[in-house]
Amino acid sequence: MKNFSFHNPNRIHFGQGQIAQIGTEIAAGSRVLLVYGGGSIKRNGVYDQVIAALAGRTVVEFAGVGANPEFDTLMRAVALGKEKQVDWVLGVGGGSVLDGSKFIAAALALDPAIDPWLIVGNKTPLHSALPIGCVLTLPATGSESNFTGVITRRETQDKLSFKNPAVFPRFCVMDPTVISSLPPRQLGNGLVDAFVHTTEQYLTFPQEARVQDRLAEGILSTLTEVAPVLLKDQADYDAQANFMWSANQAMFGLVPLGQTLDWATHAIGHELTVLYGLDHAQTLAVTLPSLWRYTFDAKRAKLAQYGRRVWNLNGDDEAVAHAAIDATRAYFESVGVKTRLTDYGIDAEAAAAGVEAQLIRHKRIALGEHADLTPADCRAIVLGAA
Amino acid sequence: MKNFSFHNPNRIHFGQGQIAQIGTEIAAGSRVLLVYGGGSIKRNGVYDQVIAALAGRTVVEFAGVGANPEFDTLMRAVALGKEKQVDWVLGVGGGSVLDGSKFIAAALALDPAIDPWLIVGNKTPLHSALPIGCVLTLPATGSESNFTGVITRRETQDKLSFKNPAVFPRFCVMDPTVISSLPPRQLGNGLVDAFVHTTEQYLTFPQEARVQDRLAEGILSTLTEVAPVLLKDQADYDAQANFMWSANQAMFGLVPLGQTLDWATHAIGHELTVLYGLDHAQTLAVTLPSLWRYTFDAKRAKLAQYGRRVWNLNGDDEAVAHAAIDATRAYFESVGVKTRLTDYGIDAEAAAAGVEAQLIRHKRIALGEHADLTPADCRAIVLGAA
Repeated sequence: MKNFSFHNPNRIHFGQGQIAQIGTEIAAGSRVLLVYGGGSIKRNGVYDQVIAALAGRTVVEFAGVGANPEFDTLMRAVALGKEKQVDWVLGVGGGSVLDGSKFIAAALALDPAIDPWLIVGNKTPLHSALPIGCVLTLPATGSESNFTGVITRRETQDKLSFKNPAVFPRFCVMDPTVISSLPPRQLGNGLVDAFVHTTEQYLTFPQEARVQDRLAEGILSTLTEVAPVLLKDQADYDAQANFMWSANQAMFGLVPLGQTLDWATHAIGHELTVLYGLDHAQTLAVTLPSLWRYTFDAKRAKLAQYGRRVWNLNGDDEAVAHAAIDATRAYFESVGVKTRLTDYGIDAEAAAAGVEAQLIRHKRIALGEHADLTPADCRAIVLGAA
Repeated sequence: MKNFSFHNPNRIHFGQGQIAQIGTEIAAGSRVLLVYGGGSIKRNGVYDQVIAALAGRTVVEFAGVGANPEFDTLMRAVALGKEKQVDWVLGVGGGSVLDGSKFIAAALALDPAIDPWLIVGNKTPLHSALPIGCVLTLPATGSESNFTGVITRRETQDKLSFKNPAVFPRFCVMDPTVISSLPPRQLGNGLVDAFVHTTEQYLTFPQEARVQDRLAEGILSTLTEVAPVLLKDQADYDAQANFMWSANQAMFGLVPLGQTLDWATHAIGHELTVLYGLDHAQTLAVTLPSLWRYTFDAKRAKLAQYGRRVWNLNGDDEAVAHAAIDATRAYFESVGVKTRLTDYGIDAEAAAAGVEAQLIRHKRIALGEHADLTPADCRAIVLGAA
């Protein structure tokens, strides 16, 4: 196990009816920029609960933060927040809204002489941000409990992440019943996203991080257990709660401790979203099985451990590792997320060339846990996802 | 899963050489009350590293905090801290020193008109405490990362806990190499203590807390794996690191979320320590198997899950549950901690009567996850530990 430091000061309120806790977290008299996406929170009752909890605070609403939150959209929220002199940012939504809220809170505290786009990619130091609260409506990214965000700028074909303790949400509210009204596509995407977040931190090589491994395997096993329950009855509370908690714990920060990670699937996936507009989870479901085949020898031992502990497979390492990849692909398909580029009508040759060029432009030239995956390797991985 | 709130703002520095991080946590010019136990930290090099990291701070030393930290001893530390006007408390030791440091930090910030003994048992509100830092030298209690403490007052035969977010350590340093120089008795005690902390939060009844269960099982499995390695070679770094991280995660606060717990073994164990001076872990090793036999029907389902996942046992629930209890007892014995009162020369009849009387006096009359264990039940449990 490598040395590490860990700190997660996020306060979590989990369970049915917990949205009311916003009233204990944001002081009366505050000026709150309420950030959300489309109208779904108005249909499922979340909006009304949030507004009720914010009684006694000035609420400035900014709606319309979509999937893969856009820099230009977020900058309009920043302008509104400045004009209305807000002192809190409350994001109500899934990972995109929460990532966007982090960016907004950081940009609102930034020296006006600095270009806010420099926040993305961590190109300017962040000394502070407005306090951030989150109400999660789609379990997937874990953004409610960590200090990372991913922002897209379509005009320049950039989808890049930033990371800074200044944007740790002060609190998050996780009410599992929001899952009842999710569209099936978002449910499937969330299950895949949480799954792949976990494997990217876990499925490398044995690193003597035993509790971290078991936590990762516990999250993965739970995701495989709750998926069929939710596909049958999206309102099953225990399945909702276990799904929501799994997705949170996947990105809470404990899984990766003391280990070298492999975020290559995300790196490739981000480029596929920028190039083709695929959902984030779709890009992961397409990339991961192919990446595991391409790096099979380096990952064999851990794939076998994963196959035995998560999929209860038996046999020698080689056989179990191959079967584990097949089981993973079948799991993604079972929750309605297709795993091949051709399923999305995308030409793999063109996608492979496009991803290679994008990775070179973004200087992502040494990916994976061994930092040995070049853009040319990633081209081959995308080709393998045909 | 029940509703819950969670917050753990503790900052952890984990790994070899991390004691130097104290210098990044405690500002230069601070006045630090350095609390420790006997002389072991002077023999294993920890003391020298701590003093080096504290260069530029005023250090006031208080040594002599023993196992089951005594109220009277700690009050001497409080008096010293007041006299020297310290503004930090740095505990260097195992759970007893760290629990004691929390009490000292709370008492130093308490209104002088209030009796500090009221802190214990949470009989007075705590609004603040001096900032606390920890350097862990014995993995066992998890005290380095939580806000509880257990204090003993021998004159009144009290061993009672307190719990308050004000005493959350600001940071802790966990250097696994300190395990190399632990006496075998402390190593065995630490392994048992971490194990039983986990089972008391986990081994109740199925509560649909799947990730929490897997985390608990992961900690327990890891403890069973590292024990034989450390018994053979106490300097094995990977085993040290996995042991230290397991003990921390057992009490970090994630295992119990959303569940009803069973702290009856600790309640009974504390009384056995007060009455007979047994080591804390010895009381747990004696009590737990008997308690599981006594509450077998209520715990059968979870014992069976535990037996299958941690001990890889096969068979029907009844058989696996019984075998799991036997395996647990054998594990305690394997790390050198005896599991029967007679092993310690204690008369079970007298101990049972004594524990019953103490629990009545401490008003602990409804223990266990179903709040149905009376002092008379606990008497029977102690008798069963003969």
